[in-house]
Amino acid sequence: MALIVQKYGGTSVGNVERIKRVAQNIASFKEAGHDVIVTVSAPGDTTDELIEVAMQLNENPSHREMDMLLSTGEQISIALLAMALEAIDVPVISLTGAQLGIITDSEHMKARIKEIKQERINREIADNKVIIVAGFQGMTDKREITTLGRGGSDTTAVAIAAAIKADLCEIYTDVDGVYTADPRIVDHTSKLNQITYDEMLELASLGAKVLHPRSVELAKINQVKLCVRSSFDTSKEGTFVVDQNQIEKEFVVTGVASDLNVAKIGIFEVPDQPGIANQIFTALADAKINVDMIVQSAMRNNINDIAFTIPKDDLNKALAIVNDLKTSIGFSEVVYADDIAKVSVVGAGMVSATGVAAKIFSTLADAKINLEMISTSEIKVSCIIKNHDDNIKKAMQRLHDAFELDKLN
Amino acid sequence: MALIVQKYGGTSVGNVERIKRVAQNIASFKEAGHDVIVTVSAPGDTTDELIEVAMQLNENPSHREMDMLLSTGEQISIALLAMALEAIDVPVISLTGAQLGIITDSEHMKARIKEIKQERINREIADNKVIIVAGFQGMTDKREITTLGRGGSDTTAVAIAAAIKADLCEIYTDVDGVYTADPRIVDHTSKLNQITYDEMLELASLGAKVLHPRSVELAKINQVKLCVRSSFDTSKEGTFVVDQNQIEKEFVVTGVASDLNVAKIGIFEVPDQPGIANQIFTALADAKINVDMIVQSAMRNNINDIAFTIPKDDLNKALAIVNDLKTSIGFSEVVYADDIAKVSVVGAGMVSATGVAAKIFSTLADAKINLEMISTSEIKVSCIIKNHDDNIKKAMQRLHDAFELDKLN
Repeated sequence: MALIVQKYGGTSVGNVERIKRVAQNIASFKEAGHDVIVTVSAPGDTTDELIEVAMQLNENPSHREMDMLLSTGEQISIALLAMALEAIDVPVISLTGAQLGIITDSEHMKARIKEIKQERINREIADNKVIIVAGFQGMTDKREITTLGRGGSDTTAVAIAAAIKADLCEIYTDVDGVYTADPRIVDHTSKLNQITYDEMLELASLGAKVLHPRSVELAKINQVKLCVRSSFDTSKEGTFVVDQNQIEKEFVVTGVASDLNVAKIGIFEVPDQPGIANQIFTALADAKINVDMIVQSAMRNNINDIAFTIPKDDLNKALAIVNDLKTSIGFSEVVYADDIAKVSVVGAGMVSATGVAAKIFSTLADAKINLEMISTSEIKVSCIIKNHDDNIKKAMQRLHDAFELDKLN
Repeated sequence: MALIVQKYGGTSVGNVERIKRVAQNIASFKEAGHDVIVTVSAPGDTTDELIEVAMQLNENPSHREMDMLLSTGEQISIALLAMALEAIDVPVISLTGAQLGIITDSEHMKARIKEIKQERINREIADNKVIIVAGFQGMTDKREITTLGRGGSDTTAVAIAAAIKADLCEIYTDVDGVYTADPRIVDHTSKLNQITYDEMLELASLGAKVLHPRSVELAKINQVKLCVRSSFDTSKEGTFVVDQNQIEKEFVVTGVASDLNVAKIGIFEVPDQPGIANQIFTALADAKINVDMIVQSAMRNNINDIAFTIPKDDLNKALAIVNDLKTSIGFSEVVYADDIAKVSVVGAGMVSATGVAAKIFSTLADAKINLEMISTSEIKVSCIIKNHDDNIKKAMQRLHDAFELDKLN
């Protein structure tokens, strides 16, 4: 008998048949003697539909009112799922984020969870009930409704699992686990049985849209055992995301990922003085622009070229900020590119293995793919390449083949 | 400068254009220097759509989960209306029933308001904000979400107006006021400028679907000045519902109404003993069946015939209850009819006028309409007639003409 948190995404509750299937899955866990707490997203396209109506009324509504509007989506999901469980005689209660006691800060539309109260959870579990809680939402200590922003429902599930020290947190989604690469791009991919938090974090950040990095980070900090599995075929085992020392057999490389939401800005002839780079990146950080890779090269005496990548959506904002600094800093030129992509190879074993980076570079060189920027961490090598022709697909397939990821399990 | 509560129905916020029009109307009151609190229903068909999905999952869902589901409709309305007001620079905040502090009992789907907390209202009004509160909903003192059942949004508006001692409670709807009869049935109807609570209560109960009787009752008890007016043409003045002594010119008869949701049950040869009628009507009351007209006639010694009317929907349930009592009470026969209708003439002036009932009976006799049952109160005469051919339309038009209601204002 275990204490299990389950999260079902919006597509998993997108219509009546799917809601019934989710209810059956929950019932099977309850029948097996487990205590189950479920968090669920807004059904299918509900959120997009609500936003569309809102935009017709106000192109720039307050974040507070958007939260008031959008939080209805999950509330609809929890009520419907609870009714589906009632219909098959499973004792159940639905709770909004506010009712469960998910306390957040007051940053509407991207609130962070400060505390999860346990009184209500404990009472309902003691009452033998399945708890269905609205994902993605919470309330401030002034009882204002907030939403958690991107990855919110995953984060709700992991935060609850951490708070109640659940034995397992299952993330049900429309894929059956984490793969060595996106099967829509790369052939002969393998499903991973296990992956470390750090690897998942890199893959999540790199655009493998299975789990939001925020939830993985929270799971890592709180040592929550995660499992990513399919809501459409619950017979499949999924991928466990666990701590490094819980993995029996460690692979040097576990996955290849790509990210198209990248733009590059280059600044030429920046004076090589202390605090100059700081000025640029502080200004970008103040504008909430997330700078990813940074490359600085001292080409000549006292003169640097600096290049960095940002999300493509922020390109115009970033260019304006950088150009504003042109005279005060005194660099010569700003260039940019948005026809690029980031291809990354991830693996917790890299830290102790040699030659991984070399193998990546030679593989891409053999494929005649030029590297524009390179960035490495202990468990990742990322390369910026041109998003031309079938460059990305070719790079990923060659890397996947080179590390024999098709034979991983 | 006044403190005004406004209520907008579901059709008034049924699409983007209508929401914008409502926002403009609210803005005009705010610009005139008034403090405005608005309650709003779920948009258009939202509630019906949610119920339809729910029924596909569970034909008999718990009332608690239905409240969880249905309360999202008004939450969508308040957020969208608040955004529309933000767009035209009116300071505004939306609040759920729970957030405003509408405390109800725990009878889900037909909760009654116990208390309306005033802290939040006072704070937001002091902050110069228009408050948009979700109608139809509240919460228990255990923070469970409840809905108020039929007439809930009107009741929310009146209850808030009563709590904060508002100067006026405006009910915006899809008609421009209360008429002497339903214009779809009767020709040459007049709009009433004023009507008393008691008259409105009778008309509301009788099927003139402008205001729910529950909200009128609450307005009467708390002396809330009500105004029913059009949300589509806000230039029209509407009808004021006020206390009798506030009406300058009193009419003997102010309206004619009909109700088709009526069935009749007759019980023959009931022993004339104390407590027998009580047994029957207690059993019906226990089953929550609302008995309207009761006629008892002592035809012979110690033997009564009893006839009464109930809502047509409850006919089968009522017949089962009455038949169950047949042997224990010892009556001879039960008959029923559901091809009937109730036609009523209402007027606060009746109490001091003579000959009103006589005029009604002679008018209907001249029209060759047979009266099956008659019931009178101080301000109303109701007759049950057959719902045959154009009987109802004919009865209403003749009565409307006889009392010269076309010349009322």
